[in-house]
Amino acid sequence: MDLWFTEKHPSGVGLTCRVTKTLHTERSAYQDIAVLQTQGLGRMLVLDGLVQTTEADEFFYHEMIAHVPLFSHPCPRHVLVIGGGDGGTVREVLKHPSVQRVDLVEIDSRVIELCRQYMPSLSTGLNDPRAVVTVGDGIEYVRTTTRKYDVILVDSTDPIGPAVVLFTPDFYRAAASILNPDGILVAQSDSPISNPESTSRTYAFIGESFPIVNLYLAPVPTYPGAVWSFTMGSKKHLLLPDAVSGRPPLETRYYTPEVHRAAFALPRFVIDLLRGGCSNVRS
Amino acid sequence: MDLWFTEKHPSGVGLTCRVTKTLHTERSAYQDIAVLQTQGLGRMLVLDGLVQTTEADEFFYHEMIAHVPLFSHPCPRHVLVIGGGDGGTVREVLKHPSVQRVDLVEIDSRVIELCRQYMPSLSTGLNDPRAVVTVGDGIEYVRTTTRKYDVILVDSTDPIGPAVVLFTPDFYRAAASILNPDGILVAQSDSPISNPESTSRTYAFIGESFPIVNLYLAPVPTYPGAVWSFTMGSKKHLLLPDAVSGRPPLETRYYTPEVHRAAFALPRFVIDLLRGGCSNVRS
Repeated sequence: MDLWFTEKHPSGVGLTCRVTKTLHTERSAYQDIAVLQTQGLGRMLVLDGLVQTTEADEFFYHEMIAHVPLFSHPCPRHVLVIGGGDGGTVREVLKHPSVQRVDLVEIDSRVIELCRQYMPSLSTGLNDPRAVVTVGDGIEYVRTTTRKYDVILVDSTDPIGPAVVLFTPDFYRAAASILNPDGILVAQSDSPISNPESTSRTYAFIGESFPIVNLYLAPVPTYPGAVWSFTMGSKKHLLLPDAVSGRPPLETRYYTPEVHRAAFALPRFVIDLLRGGCSNVRS
Repeated sequence: MDLWFTEKHPSGVGLTCRVTKTLHTERSAYQDIAVLQTQGLGRMLVLDGLVQTTEADEFFYHEMIAHVPLFSHPCPRHVLVIGGGDGGTVREVLKHPSVQRVDLVEIDSRVIELCRQYMPSLSTGLNDPRAVVTVGDGIEYVRTTTRKYDVILVDSTDPIGPAVVLFTPDFYRAAASILNPDGILVAQSDSPISNPESTSRTYAFIGESFPIVNLYLAPVPTYPGAVWSFTMGSKKHLLLPDAVSGRPPLETRYYTPEVHRAAFALPRFVIDLLRGGCSNVRS
């Protein structure tokens, strides 16, 4: 049987890939979940019909959502990951020796369980004793926790379905309130190519809660538009990797200190996009 | 009718897009040519079943193949484009006021004619009096011309079909011989994600004919792997855009001087790939 999974977007563009085995499908309390074995991209996690991560290209996304803020903070000890039930972001966070504890707050326990079963190269970080997994609502967590964090990473699905509350000014305000005075928040902020309105809205919202806001980019070949944005809100300062060059390099496949700096060099159309929504674009 | 064009690669991954009209299809002397009107990507040129360019994302590729070498050269006057019958690269080259003449050598006259008819926003550059179009074989041209160039851009299809001779040490040697002493050659060198062997081979071959060789990257969302590489061979020096900051900025959608510099910050896996094939990777 020649089986292909296709993710078609409303824009009339999509990704297609050959599936060699459907490992699992179910309807959880929150979403449709599928884990597919593909020919060219390794195993793939699909939520509500959208590719969330693949073994082949997860490293672009997970390295860049984690290492840019962690190397921008002088000494990240306590990290909170909202979403990210596959474990890939926690795995990258734990590469930093300064990190003492990572809280992962994922709303859907089935994502965690299925990734533990089918994508162990991602979920491996969740087995580390420094990782504390909470199944729950991210916005509820940031409103009620008494913990304080150095870095918060919003590794959610896109602003449709259960993650929609994570893309609101309320959420960013609550997140800012549980960050230490030199804290940093990074949220995935969609593709400025396939969904520019989402990118500029997230950038504007984060700018309402943080005095310093910067956007950076990384390629994620299996995501629509293929160029992904991350918005970094910072309470105090933005260290660039020169400032932390005393730290030993990590084992990575995408990230380097040069790539870190380069990720903030925004294309002209992205500068124009953000200027339309918010006034504090550097560059 | 719900019509979708799908480009499927041997790796089992592909791009699909909704086609609202098939504007033209034919078998030329060299290849199958199709021009499609798509819902999400504007008009699309397809050669032998592979997307060559779309109105929606052509600017990434054309700006980066042209402006990086032209801003790296102290005063580019004479430019040669091999391939590039759609005209997009010539259009970008002609934005540089120093350019006095651009020779375009395209093997397939039908590509030129069809792009003039259906994709005028790309072919517009070919109407400029400084553009001289030759229908012919690129390797034959570089072996026999008596002209000398400041910059040569190899804007070819991938190394299958008619373009295969353009990815050989013989071609790069002949190209180097018609460059002025401070000349620069840039060749598109495939995606280090979807076709890493092709990238490292092209990089190694160009390194055999040029004392200075550098690879840079740009996203092209509709190309397989979505991250595209360009290899720049230089006879003498590599000017970074700081050095040419006296020149007025051009009207672009992707390129900025910061993006120019950032494009040379190679991901770890690309550094490792090139180290495997060749020893002169900077970074």
